[in-house]
Amino acid sequence: MDTEQQPNFRATRDGFRWDDVACVPYKQDGEAPFKDISRQVLFHDDALACELRYFEMDTNGYSTLERHEHAHAVMILRGRGRCMVGDDVREVKQFDLVTIPAWTWHQFRACAGEPFGFLCMVNATRDRPVLPTAEQLARMRASPAVAAFLDSGSGR
Amino acid sequence: MDTEQQPNFRATRDGFRWDDVACVPYKQDGEAPFKDISRQVLFHDDALACELRYFEMDTNGYSTLERHEHAHAVMILRGRGRCMVGDDVREVKQFDLVTIPAWTWHQFRACAGEPFGFLCMVNATRDRPVLPTAEQLARMRASPAVAAFLDSGSGR
Repeated sequence: MDTEQQPNFRATRDGFRWDDVACVPYKQDGEAPFKDISRQVLFHDDALACELRYFEMDTNGYSTLERHEHAHAVMILRGRGRCMVGDDVREVKQFDLVTIPAWTWHQFRACAGEPFGFLCMVNATRDRPVLPTAEQLARMRASPAVAAFLDSGSGR
Repeated sequence: MDTEQQPNFRATRDGFRWDDVACVPYKQDGEAPFKDISRQVLFHDDALACELRYFEMDTNGYSTLERHEHAHAVMILRGRGRCMVGDDVREVKQFDLVTIPAWTWHQFRACAGEPFGFLCMVNATRDRPVLPTAEQLARMRASPAVAAFLDSGSGR
Protein backbone atom coordinates (compact mmCIF):
# COMPACT_ATOMS: atom_id res chain seq x y z
CA MET A 1 0.00 0.00 0.00
CA ASP A 2 1.03 3.58 -0.47
CA THR A 3 0.27 4.64 3.10
CA GLU A 4 2.72 7.30 4.17
CA GLN A 5 3.75 7.76 7.75
CA GLN A 6 1.97 10.94 8.77
CA PRO A 7 2.33 13.03 11.91
CA ASN A 8 -0.43 12.44 14.47
CA PHE A 9 -1.29 16.15 14.53
CA ARG A 10 -1.95 18.07 11.30
CA ALA A 11 -3.22 21.63 11.67
CA THR A 12 -5.61 23.31 9.28
CA ARG A 13 -4.43 26.34 7.36
CA ASP A 14 -6.48 29.18 5.96
CA GLY A 15 -9.02 28.19 3.38
CA PHE A 16 -9.59 24.52 4.08
CA ARG A 17 -6.07 23.31 3.49
CA TRP A 18 -4.03 21.18 5.92
CA ASP A 19 -0.41 20.62 6.85
CA ASP A 20 1.03 17.49 5.19
CA VAL A 21 -2.05 17.05 2.99
CA ALA A 22 -1.60 17.48 -0.77
CA CYS A 23 -4.29 19.34 -2.72
CA VAL A 24 -4.51 17.32 -5.94
CA PRO A 25 -6.71 16.99 -9.01
CA TYR A 26 -10.19 15.58 -8.40
CA LYS A 27 -9.53 12.63 -10.71
CA GLN A 28 -6.43 11.22 -12.28
CA ASP A 29 -8.01 10.81 -15.69
CA GLY A 30 -10.16 13.20 -17.69
CA GLU A 31 -12.64 10.71 -19.12
CA ALA A 32 -15.48 11.84 -16.85
CA PRO A 33 -16.86 15.40 -16.92
CA PHE A 34 -16.22 17.65 -13.91
CA LYS A 35 -15.26 21.28 -13.32
CA ASP A 36 -13.07 23.27 -10.92
CA ILE A 37 -12.83 20.71 -8.15
CA SER A 38 -9.91 19.56 -6.00
CA ARG A 39 -9.31 16.54 -3.77
CA GLN A 40 -7.45 16.23 -0.46
CA VAL A 41 -7.08 12.83 1.21
CA LEU A 42 -7.25 13.60 4.94
CA PHE A 43 -7.04 10.02 6.23
CA HIS A 44 -5.77 7.00 4.30
CA ASP A 45 -4.31 4.37 6.59
CA ASP A 46 -4.00 0.57 6.42
CA ALA A 47 -5.41 0.46 9.97
CA LEU A 48 -8.68 2.08 8.78
CA ALA A 49 -11.23 0.35 6.56
CA CYS A 50 -12.38 3.71 5.15
CA GLU A 51 -10.76 6.85 3.82
CA LEU A 52 -11.79 10.41 4.59
CA ARG A 53 -11.42 12.86 1.71
CA TYR A 54 -12.22 16.56 1.30
CA PHE A 55 -13.47 17.78 -2.08
CA GLU A 56 -13.83 21.45 -2.87
CA MET A 57 -15.41 23.19 -5.84
CA ASP A 58 -14.87 26.76 -6.93
CA THR A 59 -17.93 28.84 -7.73
CA ASN A 60 -19.86 27.03 -10.49
CA GLY A 61 -17.72 23.91 -10.17
CA TYR A 62 -19.24 20.44 -10.05
CA SER A 63 -18.34 16.83 -9.40
CA THR A 64 -18.88 14.01 -11.90
CA LEU A 65 -22.42 12.72 -12.34
CA GLU A 66 -21.86 9.01 -11.61
CA ARG A 67 -22.85 5.94 -9.61
CA HIS A 68 -21.18 2.84 -8.17
CA GLU A 69 -21.63 -0.12 -5.84
CA HIS A 70 -19.90 1.57 -2.89
CA ALA A 71 -21.71 4.07 -0.65
CA HIS A 72 -20.64 7.60 0.31
CA ALA A 73 -21.10 9.27 3.70
CA VAL A 74 -20.85 13.04 3.20
CA MET A 75 -20.72 16.06 5.50
CA ILE A 76 -20.75 19.52 3.94
CA LEU A 77 -17.77 21.38 5.40
CA ARG A 78 -17.66 24.67 3.52
CA GLY A 79 -20.33 26.98 2.15
CA ARG A 80 -23.55 26.13 0.38
CA GLY A 81 -24.38 24.27 -2.77
CA ARG A 82 -26.74 21.77 -4.29
CA CYS A 83 -26.69 18.00 -4.32
CA MET A 84 -28.53 15.38 -6.36
CA VAL A 85 -29.08 11.88 -4.93
CA GLY A 86 -31.21 9.78 -7.27
CA ASP A 87 -34.05 12.07 -8.34
CA ASP A 88 -33.83 14.13 -5.15
CA VAL A 89 -32.22 17.59 -5.52
CA ARG A 90 -31.53 19.59 -2.35
CA GLU A 91 -29.84 22.74 -1.18
CA VAL A 92 -27.18 21.83 1.38
CA LYS A 93 -25.12 23.93 3.79
CA GLN A 94 -22.21 23.62 6.19
CA PHE A 95 -22.40 20.50 8.42
CA ASP A 96 -25.45 18.98 6.66
CA LEU A 97 -25.21 15.20 6.12
CA VAL A 98 -25.78 13.39 2.82
CA THR A 99 -25.91 9.63 2.25
CA ILE A 100 -25.26 8.28 -1.25
CA PRO A 101 -26.56 4.68 -1.33
CA ALA A 102 -25.20 2.00 -3.67
CA TRP A 103 -25.89 2.46 -7.39
CA THR A 104 -27.52 5.88 -6.93
CA TRP A 105 -26.78 8.66 -9.42
CA HIS A 106 -25.28 11.65 -7.62
CA GLN A 107 -23.60 14.98 -8.22
CA PHE A 108 -22.56 18.04 -6.20
CA ARG A 109 -22.73 21.57 -7.64
CA ALA A 110 -21.34 24.86 -6.28
CA CYS A 111 -24.23 26.95 -7.51
CA ALA A 112 -24.59 29.41 -4.59
CA GLY A 113 -21.93 31.86 -5.79
CA GLU A 114 -19.27 30.63 -3.37
CA PRO A 115 -16.77 27.79 -2.92
CA PHE A 116 -18.41 24.58 -1.75
CA GLY A 117 -16.61 21.76 0.00
CA PHE A 118 -17.50 18.45 1.62
CA LEU A 119 -16.00 15.56 3.56
CA CYS A 120 -16.58 12.14 2.01
CA MET A 121 -16.08 8.88 3.91
CA VAL A 122 -15.73 5.84 1.66
CA ASN A 123 -14.59 2.21 1.92
CA ALA A 124 -10.87 1.86 1.17
CA THR A 125 -11.67 -1.11 -1.12
CA ARG A 126 -14.28 -0.08 -3.68
CA ASP A 127 -15.43 -0.37 -7.28
CA ARG A 128 -14.93 2.22 -10.02
CA PRO A 129 -17.71 4.72 -10.76
CA VAL A 130 -19.69 4.43 -13.98
CA LEU A 131 -21.11 7.26 -16.08
CA PRO A 132 -24.68 7.48 -17.41
CA THR A 133 -25.41 6.44 -20.96
CA ALA A 134 -27.22 8.94 -23.20
CA GLU A 135 -30.41 7.01 -22.59
CA GLN A 136 -30.00 7.03 -18.81
CA LEU A 137 -29.25 10.76 -18.90
CA ALA A 138 -32.39 11.41 -20.96
CA ARG A 139 -34.42 9.43 -18.43
CA MET A 140 -32.96 11.48 -15.55
CA ARG A 141 -33.79 14.70 -17.38
CA ALA A 142 -37.46 13.74 -17.51
CA SER A 143 -37.58 15.20 -13.99
CA PRO A 144 -37.70 19.03 -14.28
CA ALA A 145 -35.88 19.41 -10.94
CA VAL A 146 -33.06 17.13 -12.09
CA ALA A 147 -32.83 18.84 -15.51
CA ALA A 148 -32.63 22.28 -13.86
CA PHE A 149 -29.97 20.96 -11.47
CA LEU A 150 -27.85 19.46 -14.25
CA ASP A 151 -27.97 22.72 -16.21
CA SER A 152 -27.30 25.02 -13.23
CA GLY A 153 -24.15 27.11 -13.30
CA SER A 154 -22.77 25.35 -16.34
CA GLY A 155 -23.58 28.04 -18.85
CA ARG A 156 -25.55 25.55 -20.91
CA MET B 1 -27.10 -5.33 12.48
CA ASP B 2 -29.08 -2.46 13.92
CA THR B 3 -28.74 -0.24 10.87
CA GLU B 4 -31.79 1.96 10.54
CA GLN B 5 -33.05 3.24 7.24
CA GLN B 6 -32.14 6.91 7.30
CA PRO B 7 -33.11 9.71 4.92
CA ASN B 8 -30.40 10.57 2.41
CA PHE B 9 -30.44 14.22 3.49
CA ARG B 10 -30.15 15.19 7.15
CA ALA B 11 -29.79 18.90 7.90
CA THR B 12 -27.79 20.32 10.78
CA ARG B 13 -29.59 22.29 13.45
CA ASP B 14 -28.21 24.96 15.72
CA GLY B 15 -25.46 23.88 18.02
CA PHE B 16 -24.02 20.85 16.26
CA ARG B 17 -27.13 18.71 16.31
CA TRP B 18 -28.68 16.98 13.29
CA ASP B 19 -32.10 15.87 12.11
CA ASP B 20 -32.68 12.14 12.70
CA VAL B 21 -29.50 11.81 14.80
CA ALA B 22 -29.91 10.99 18.50
CA CYS B 23 -27.67 12.76 21.01
CA VAL B 24 -26.85 10.01 23.49
CA PRO B 25 -24.52 9.33 26.42
CA TYR B 26 -20.83 9.05 25.53
CA LYS B 27 -20.66 5.48 26.83
CA GLN B 28 -23.29 2.97 27.80
CA ASP B 29 -21.53 1.95 30.98
CA GLY B 30 -19.96 4.08 33.70
CA GLU B 31 -16.89 1.95 34.39
CA ALA B 32 -14.49 4.34 32.68
CA PRO B 33 -13.99 7.92 33.86
CA PHE B 34 -15.26 10.75 31.61
CA LYS B 35 -17.10 14.04 32.09
CA ASP B 36 -19.79 16.08 30.32
CA ILE B 37 -19.50 14.49 26.91
CA SER B 38 -22.14 13.36 24.41
CA ARG B 39 -22.09 11.07 21.36
CA GLN B 40 -23.94 11.34 18.05
CA VAL B 41 -23.55 8.61 15.43
CA LEU B 42 -23.71 10.46 12.11
CA PHE B 43 -23.11 7.47 9.80
CA HIS B 44 -23.53 3.80 10.70
CA ASP B 45 -24.41 1.69 7.68
CA ASP B 46 -23.78 -1.94 6.70
CA ALA B 47 -22.53 -0.64 3.33
CA LEU B 48 -19.71 1.28 5.07
CA ALA B 49 -16.73 -0.36 6.78
CA CYS B 50 -16.37 2.60 9.15
CA GLU B 51 -18.65 4.72 11.31
CA LEU B 52 -18.52 8.48 11.67
CA ARG B 53 -19.37 9.81 15.12
CA TYR B 54 -19.44 13.29 16.64
CA PHE B 55 -18.41 13.72 20.28
CA GLU B 56 -18.90 16.97 22.13
CA MET B 57 -17.67 18.07 25.54
CA ASP B 58 -19.02 20.92 27.61
CA THR B 59 -16.51 23.34 29.11
CA ASN B 60 -14.10 21.31 31.28
CA GLY B 61 -15.45 18.01 29.97
CA TYR B 62 -13.15 15.20 28.88
CA SER B 63 -13.18 11.84 27.16
CA THR B 64 -11.90 8.62 28.73
CA LEU B 65 -8.13 8.13 28.89
CA GLU B 66 -7.81 4.80 27.08
CA ARG B 67 -6.20 2.79 24.30
CA HIS B 68 -7.12 -0.06 21.94
CA GLU B 69 -6.09 -1.99 18.86
CA HIS B 70 -8.27 0.04 16.47
CA ALA B 71 -7.20 3.44 15.16
CA HIS B 72 -9.10 6.73 15.23
CA ALA B 73 -9.18 9.40 12.52
CA VAL B 74 -10.30 12.66 14.10
CA MET B 75 -11.25 16.11 12.80
CA ILE B 76 -12.00 18.85 15.32
CA LEU B 77 -15.38 20.29 14.36
CA ARG B 78 -16.20 22.75 17.13
CA GLY B 79 -14.11 25.11 19.22
CA ARG B 80 -10.71 24.59 20.76
CA GLY B 81 -9.34 22.13 23.26
CA ARG B 82 -6.39 19.94 24.05
CA CYS B 83 -5.56 16.43 22.97
CA MET B 84 -3.06 13.84 24.19
CA VAL B 85 -1.74 11.16 21.81
CA GLY B 86 0.91 9.02 23.51
CA ASP B 87 3.16 11.51 25.30
CA ASP B 88 2.33 14.31 22.86
CA VAL B 89 -0.03 17.01 24.18
CA ARG B 90 -1.30 19.65 21.72
CA GLU B 91 -3.74 22.50 21.49
CA VAL B 92 -6.19 21.78 18.67
CA LYS B 93 -8.79 23.94 16.94
CA GLN B 94 -11.64 23.67 14.44
CA PHE B 95 -10.78 21.49 11.39
CA ASP B 96 -7.40 20.28 12.74
CA LEU B 97 -6.71 16.58 12.11
CA VAL B 98 -5.60 14.06 14.75
CA THR B 99 -4.55 10.45 14.17
CA ILE B 100 -4.73 8.00 17.09
CA PRO B 101 -2.60 4.97 16.15
CA ALA B 102 -3.19 1.46 17.54
CA TRP B 103 -2.49 0.96 21.25
CA THR B 104 -1.75 4.63 21.89
CA TRP B 105 -3.03 6.30 25.07
CA HIS B 106 -5.27 9.23 24.18
CA GLN B 107 -7.67 11.74 25.67
CA PHE B 108 -9.50 14.93 24.62
CA ARG B 109 -10.12 17.80 27.03
CA ALA B 110 -12.30 20.91 26.67
CA CYS B 111 -9.95 23.17 28.56
CA ALA B 112 -10.30 26.38 26.52
CA GLY B 113 -13.41 27.69 28.29
CA GLU B 114 -15.80 26.61 25.53
CA PRO B 115 -17.57 23.52 24.18
CA PHE B 116 -15.25 21.29 22.17
CA GLY B 117 -16.40 18.77 19.58
CA PHE B 118 -14.80 16.41 17.10
CA LEU B 119 -15.64 13.95 14.33
CA CYS B 120 -14.20 10.47 14.81
CA MET B 121 -13.97 7.88 12.01
CA VAL B 122 -13.50 4.34 13.26
CA ASN B 123 -13.75 0.79 11.88
CA ALA B 124 -17.24 -0.66 12.36
CA THR B 125 -15.68 -3.88 13.69
CA ARG B 126 -13.31 -3.07 16.53
CA ASP B 127 -11.98 -4.13 19.94
CA ARG B 128 -12.97 -2.69 23.29
CA PRO B 129 -10.85 0.09 24.84
CA VAL B 130 -8.73 -0.66 27.89
CA LEU B 131 -7.95 1.68 30.80
CA PRO B 132 -4.49 2.33 32.24
CA THR B 133 -3.40 0.48 35.36
CA ALA B 134 -2.15 2.58 38.29
CA GLU B 135 1.40 1.70 37.25
CA GLN B 136 0.84 2.76 33.63
CA LEU B 137 -0.77 6.01 34.81
CA ALA B 138 2.18 6.75 37.06
CA ARG B 139 4.55 6.15 34.15
CA MET B 140 2.53 8.56 31.96
CA ARG B 141 2.64 11.19 34.68
CA ALA B 142 6.43 11.14 34.64
CA SER B 143 6.07 13.58 31.74
CA PRO B 144 5.30 17.05 33.17
CA ALA B 145 3.31 17.96 30.03
CA VAL B 146 1.16 14.84 30.35
CA ALA B 147 0.66 15.34 34.11
CA ALA B 148 -0.43 18.97 33.53
CA PHE B 149 -2.80 17.84 30.78
CA LEU B 150 -4.39 15.11 32.91
CA ASP B 151 -4.97 17.58 35.76
CA SER B 152 -6.29 20.43 33.58
CA GLY B 153 -9.84 21.58 34.13
CA SER B 154 -10.65 18.72 36.45
CA GLY B 155 -10.43 20.66 39.69
CA ARG B 156 -7.87 18.20 41.00
